[in-house]
Amino acid sequence: MFEEQNDRKLCIICSKGTLDMAYPGMVLANAALMEGIDASIFFTFWGLDMITDKKMDHLKCTPLGNPSMAMPNGMGIPNFMAMLPGMTDFATSMMKKEMEKLDFPPPREYLQTIADAGGKLYACKMTADMMKLTEDDLFEEVEGIVGAMEFLEIADGAQVIFV
Amino acid sequence: MFEEQNDRKLCIICSKGTLDMAYPGMVLANAALMEGIDASIFFTFWGLDMITDKKMDHLKCTPLGNPSMAMPNGMGIPNFMAMLPGMTDFATSMMKKEMEKLDFPPPREYLQTIADAGGKLYACKMTADMMKLTEDDLFEEVEGIVGAMEFLEIADGAQVIFV
Amino acid sequence: MFEEQNDRKLCIICSKGTLDMAYPGMVLANAALMEGIDASIFFTFWGLDMITDKKMDHLKCTPLGNPSMAMPNGMGIPNFMAMLPGMTDFATSMMKKEMEKLDFPPPREYLQTIADAGGKLYACKMTADMMKLTEDDLFEEVEGIVGAMEFLEIADGAQVIFV
Repeated sequence: MFEEQNDRKLCIICSKGTLDMAYPGMVLANAALMEGIDASIFFTFWGLDMITDKKMDHLKCTPLGNPSMAMPNGMGIPNFMAMLPGMTDFATSMMKKEMEKLDFPPPREYLQTIADAGGKLYACKMTADMMKLTEDDLFEEVEGIVGAMEFLEIADGAQVIFV
Repeated sequence: MFEEQNDRKLCIICSKGTLDMAYPGMVLANAALMEGIDASIFFTFWGLDMITDKKMDHLKCTPLGNPSMAMPNGMGIPNFMAMLPGMTDFATSMMKKEMEKLDFPPPREYLQTIADAGGKLYACKMTADMMKLTEDDLFEEVEGIVGAMEFLEIADGAQVIFV
Repeated sequence: MFEEQNDRKLCIICSKGTLDMAYPGMVLANAALMEGIDASIFFTFWGLDMITDKKMDHLKCTPLGNPSMAMPNGMGIPNFMAMLPGMTDFATSMMKKEMEKLDFPPPREYLQTIADAGGKLYACKMTADMMKLTEDDLFEEVEGIVGAMEFLEIADGAQVIFV
């Protein structure tokens, strides 16, 4: 029923600051909003990079410690190579190109789309304090900096996904 | 009540391609099915390796960046050693042996057991596209490649666990 | 309503053994208990380090493979530097200081607070067996070592968060 669907809530916690792990939360929030499901994202720990104005356009990904990230020819990248200077930039630009080809927007644009569709973005107070971030440092669509207890109230009745 | 238990649903998202992080999702899905709980697994990002025919028998784990992974004598492995050639293979074979001793099957066999017990396996469309994977590249028990919106419909009313 | 709030349950799975990823689960469990929400934590895989008596006071974090972990001046730490001997200890002591400044207690003390407030701590049987841990090796507030099926019963009706 339409009204029941309207009651459904999705609450996503983004805790990683890498480019690859930025996407799962954004994709799910966006898909939820397109289905009329209420969606909010709570950014905590390294996930704060996703909404930090100076960092959100420069998220990186690294093949280091991730045996799944392969060269274009499918060959894995051994750690002793993955740690070489330049490899993080190489992997990052590869992923950006793939995302672009598939028409997935970069983080700032994607989060703007989510906010425009009614998704709510919150920063975690504890980790914002740890990183000395105030609202001025954050993406303008962020609703506010909230504590864990406030977050739990927002998440009442929601399906919670921790990325 | 029996009927209520039948209504319970577990929906697991596997996003990692390492051998160690392949297990939590499989163990939970299998336990759920044994209790009569509906279970499905959605493989996304690096988790697609778990159901990619050419890769699923060769998942690796690495002590790099994971201070918890220790030598058999309990001593940690510093990163400058963990990155040496051969260390990933060494850690992988150690973990395989431990799993075998405890009678936990390797991924292909475990996923077959889960499918045989009625668990549903789905691949994420966005990341399958990114990795240029079609259904022909995937483990035969995979139901299909689905988008995020379809996934959210499958996950309606479920407890969702993102690994 | 008060009675409904009392029915709310939070079930957290801690699967990581790093100092940074130890906190999200503890913060959420603690906040839940303060709001009268039932909370339990299930420690599995590397997360067992958080409740292993010999290890829980020595959790580490590493900037390796985590481009978000920056120097005090905000500059990122490239992987070829992050893997140098001493860098893990340096990053760990930096994070400990930040946590202390914000009055977040170290893991043992935080878990004690959670247990005192009625939070339940469980160890995962499969991974405890893998690491040859018995109840004697674990933090004294741990209720017991339970299997995945028992865990699913505990998690019935709960919001589940996998860290």
